Amino acid sequence: MKNNRVVIVGTGFVGMSYAYALLNQGVVEELVLIDLNKEKAEGEAMDLNHGLAFAPRKMSIKAGDYSDCKDASLVVITAGVNQKPGETRIDLLNRNAKIIQTVTSNIMKSGFDGIILVASNPVDILTYVAWKESKLPSSRVLGSGTSLDTARLRYEISKYIHIDSRNIHAYIMGEHGDSEFVCWSKAYVGAKPMLDVIESMEEINFEDLDHIYQSVRDAAQEIIQKKNATYYGIGMALVRITQAIFNNENRIMPISAYNDGVYDIDKDLYIGLPAVLNRDGVHHVVNLKLSEDEQIKLQKSAKLLKDSLNQMNL
Amino acid sequence: MKNNRVVIVGTGFVGMSYAYALLNQGVVEELVLIDLNKEKAEGEAMDLNHGLAFAPRKMSIKAGDYSDCKDASLVVITAGVNQKPGETRIDLLNRNAKIIQTVTSNIMKSGFDGIILVASNPVDILTYVAWKESKLPSSRVLGSGTSLDTARLRYEISKYIHIDSRNIHAYIMGEHGDSEFVCWSKAYVGAKPMLDVIESMEEINFEDLDHIYQSVRDAAQEIIQKKNATYYGIGMALVRITQAIFNNENRIMPISAYNDGVYDIDKDLYIGLPAVLNRDGVHHVVNLKLSEDEQIKLQKSAKLLKDSLNQMNL
Amino acid sequence: MKNNRVVIVGTGFVGMSYAYALLNQGVVEELVLIDLNKEKAEGEAMDLNHGLAFAPRKMSIKAGDYSDCKDASLVVITAGVNQKPGETRIDLLNRNAKIIQTVTSNIMKSGFDGIILVASNPVDILTYVAWKESKLPSSRVLGSGTSLDTARLRYEISKYIHIDSRNIHAYIMGEHGDSEFVCWSKAYVGAKPMLDVIESMEEINFEDLDHIYQSVRDAAQEIIQKKNATYYGIGMALVRITQAIFNNENRIMPISAYNDGVYDIDKDLYIGLPAVLNRDGVHHVVNLKLSEDEQIKLQKSAKLLKDSLNQMNL
Amino acid sequence: MKNNRVVIVGTGFVGMSYAYALLNQGVVEELVLIDLNKEKAEGEAMDLNHGLAFAPRKMSIKAGDYSDCKDASLVVITAGVNQKPGETRIDLLNRNAKIIQTVTSNIMKSGFDGIILVASNPVDILTYVAWKESKLPSSRVLGSGTSLDTARLRYEISKYIHIDSRNIHAYIMGEHGDSEFVCWSKAYVGAKPMLDVIESMEEINFEDLDHIYQSVRDAAQEIIQKKNATYYGIGMALVRITQAIFNNENRIMPISAYNDGVYDIDKDLYIGLPAVLNRDGVHHVVNLKLSEDEQIKLQKSAKLLKDSLNQMNL
Repeated sequence: MKNNRVVIVGTGFVGMSYAYALLNQGVVEELVLIDLNKEKAEGEAMDLNHGLAFAPRKMSIKAGDYSDCKDASLVVITAGVNQKPGETRIDLLNRNAKIIQTVTSNIMKSGFDGIILVASNPVDILTYVAWKESKLPSSRVLGSGTSLDTARLRYEISKYIHIDSRNIHAYIMGEHGDSEFVCWSKAYVGAKPMLDVIESMEEINFEDLDHIYQSVRDAAQEIIQKKNATYYGIGMALVRITQAIFNNENRIMPISAYNDGVYDIDKDLYIGLPAVLNRDGVHHVVNLKLSEDEQIKLQKSAKLLKDSLNQMNL
Repeated sequence: MKNNRVVIVGTGFVGMSYAYALLNQGVVEELVLIDLNKEKAEGEAMDLNHGLAFAPRKMSIKAGDYSDCKDASLVVITAGVNQKPGETRIDLLNRNAKIIQTVTSNIMKSGFDGIILVASNPVDILTYVAWKESKLPSSRVLGSGTSLDTARLRYEISKYIHIDSRNIHAYIMGEHGDSEFVCWSKAYVGAKPMLDVIESMEEINFEDLDHIYQSVRDAAQEIIQKKNATYYGIGMALVRITQAIFNNENRIMPISAYNDGVYDIDKDLYIGLPAVLNRDGVHHVVNLKLSEDEQIKLQKSAKLLKDSLNQMNL
Repeated sequence: MKNNRVVIVGTGFVGMSYAYALLNQGVVEELVLIDLNKEKAEGEAMDLNHGLAFAPRKMSIKAGDYSDCKDASLVVITAGVNQKPGETRIDLLNRNAKIIQTVTSNIMKSGFDGIILVASNPVDILTYVAWKESKLPSSRVLGSGTSLDTARLRYEISKYIHIDSRNIHAYIMGEHGDSEFVCWSKAYVGAKPMLDVIESMEEINFEDLDHIYQSVRDAAQEIIQKKNATYYGIGMALVRITQAIFNNENRIMPISAYNDGVYDIDKDLYIGLPAVLNRDGVHHVVNLKLSEDEQIKLQKSAKLLKDSLNQMNL
Repeated sequence: MKNNRVVIVGTGFVGMSYAYALLNQGVVEELVLIDLNKEKAEGEAMDLNHGLAFAPRKMSIKAGDYSDCKDASLVVITAGVNQKPGETRIDLLNRNAKIIQTVTSNIMKSGFDGIILVASNPVDILTYVAWKESKLPSSRVLGSGTSLDTARLRYEISKYIHIDSRNIHAYIMGEHGDSEFVCWSKAYVGAKPMLDVIESMEEINFEDLDHIYQSVRDAAQEIIQKKNATYYGIGMALVRITQAIFNNENRIMPISAYNDGVYDIDKDLYIGLPAVLNRDGVHHVVNLKLSEDEQIKLQKSAKLLKDSLNQMNL
């Protein structure tokens, strides 16, 4: 890792919430903002820079262009478009894939040789697109995947059983979307299996767990209804992934990773799996022994992603 | 100070950038969001809560109502409306004053007995309005004033002379608006007077200083042209003020304070002055010996604010 | 919790490493140092205060006396003496118990009504002594227990399998001493059971785990041989416990807790168990389903502690 | 700067307090401890590593040897010996100079090409010795100088006038020793000259300032009387210098810098002066306009240092 520079492509609310969280937490030394609308990127850089005097650490922040990717250690892609009236899901997919291809192509043309983190949705599909276009090793392209869904899950369980969310060890796996699922068979509170927690607490039972899963799965939709978009949570999830990479943490996080056969599901796709992150990107995918039921859910989720990929013009 | 609870009234971008910065910096224990649009406040609380698993410190965040002000130590008002087409400046002022009066009245009805920090614009006028309505001692009502302008100034000087912005000691004083000015006679880089800096550096001269002042004064306008609004910088300035208060720092910051005669300008108004902040709010206004020129500028700025106050229906 | 004041009784290296870590991490607002040698406490306070200008947060630090406990939220006891030549283990125990009794009695006479955290060794015995003397509810008296041993374990496993120590979820339970043991049946890496980790990694096997346990159990001894004492690790463990309490985290940590029957072992004693910590102290002990082997180890460890308590003049 | 590695030579209390503060503040990625007593360095590394699970950031800590300096960005020298009974001041100086020469020679033999920071006393003399031996540019060798004295000064003034020590802008200049002095003519509280502060506050007058100076000058001696040594404050001062360097801050700090003629005093020596620190080390010494009285004090202080250097066998 040559330096501590992050480039963000796309200065919408997701990209900027990530940038603002980086500034407030003092995570990186250099930040470059790229947007089709260069003026907007400049305005955003100004707004962030005015907070510098109140930040925990010095940071260089500027609006830039793709040539700034050359020396970057990490490029985070948050660009993308929304559905037009009448547009089919596949048409939208292809339109966004086109954008990610162009963005990735521009990044690579700079001579970039770092890690790409994709946050644009549908994240598993678009991470695959970015990887293909980049020709980088799959370990160096990852997506935000179910990292935020997992954070939501931990928050909801925490609220339910009154235990610090940092003591809740559980993952949402699969597509970042409706086919995602909680790996309850490998869920723990402290070092106590969730099954034992349920047994020993009157406050919680299996129906509650399912209710928690549903509320997590539908959280994005609920927030969008209430405030039109969701960006703060994902901004902080991206910061956490960034820290795991820059601090060379060997941290396990559920992210969108390339399935090279660690799990017995469709191959040659990206999907939400727990993986070890360090300065080299995705060091390896963690192989959890799933329950039979969970294995089926993961296969179904992978199948859905594979079907989408097959329908697209890639 | 009973506890560590902050209530934000108004969940627009300023209020939410402040909230998000509080979360990322781990400053307070409890945060309550109030908005006329309760649904929006709920969505914002959800979005923030999902970042909790990645925050440096546990925090309780929820959407609430004015009854939550009762036990709060600090209420931050960011509510306000924008100019309607054809609306005069004074009509807009009266409309915003009305809003602040209602908000303040609701806060006080809860039994609130803490500190009010106003960020709504025009901040000097509206802080005065909040103070009048609250009947609190003036030490317990303050506005963000020129805190952000000063941060911008420090950033711009820092960029110019390549010295850490935390080593730039200088204040913007007066109205948070066009009549504000830099107190250059009391500006230092480390412990070196700005005058000496100019003498000893070829890179900078008086014309540059004036250029820096202008760019700072017009920064908000420039950012608004580029990205329609400005909120990240002010969010972090509000966090810094919050820390000074909660940590009982006796910190000197330029904020909108009640002028009770420390400076020889119009009285009974709020205006941007350096003040010592601690757990009791504004402990006292710092009396700087201004140059003759600066004294005139401050008088003019105060006069403008007084004229506005006189024209309003207060 | 009235305020954010911590009092440390005993300014030896453990107490001072804790104090210095509190200052560097900016955890509390007020710190009072008490020592029989008042001069030493004053010197330590001066030395810490000179670092304040470089600390992340303002802190009030002073040498004080027991009357300062009155308004404290937390008193941390690190006082104690070492074995004299020829002194029996029980004589030493009684001598230290006497000290803890005197200290606790002085704390309670101030009108103290907060939480007592004991770090003096043997910590399980002396925490019991402090609790008895204080007449506080057992939830408000706890010891550092196996918190540091657990941190050492997590570090050693982390080093072995190249995964972030914060992803290692495992506890050392029982007496903080030779009869302590690892609860391997409830040990996880991320959400992967240790058993599965061993199966899937060539780098680690059961013998390694036992080797890790031994090196952790003997770590204090090894450090003492190398540098005469051990204090940095325990200083940071005490800070983590302090944060869990002050931030009201509901955090699960292995500490010395009163066994009121959650585990089927001797009762009326303090022993290392995972427990939920918040502003009220020990909210509850977490009941893990131990393996048969682990259950026997815990019983033996408890028996040893009970025997010691019975032999003492309490 | 190749990486984020710090090597500490000398694991006495100053070196270890610096190391512990680095760990608690999460400042660097890699730390290597070197000591003649390799066992002690190993014990210290173990003790620190056990705190890792409670640290804000992952860090690699180990005991090492001079070959580890090769890739280090910063080496901090804290080694040195104390006066033997009957030893003259100059004999002690020569003995310590010999140690620093050996240490520096070993560092350079590794192929080291970073920055050397000296904390061993008398710091101005020994920094000069290290620089000479290293043959590095003077910008890359600096001493802790009056950084701690200045922190003490800021703390004492802060206590006196009840203003946050981070708002006190003043430097102690000259030799880190009895001939040091406060540059009162360039001392500020916020942006208010100290002279104006004295005029406007009844609580403080010139006699108080002199009293403050004396207590700061004698603080080390007083702490040594009370606790035999002083190390916590200097540990944090060294961390602050480290941050200024690693974060490329262009931060102004009073440190022991090579006087190349910026001030009209003896040349070819190291002495406490305000300087701009960044990733290249000492970017430049800040030229303050001293009062006549201060200029004389600085000349006297430099003369003392020059005399010592001349008396030594260098």
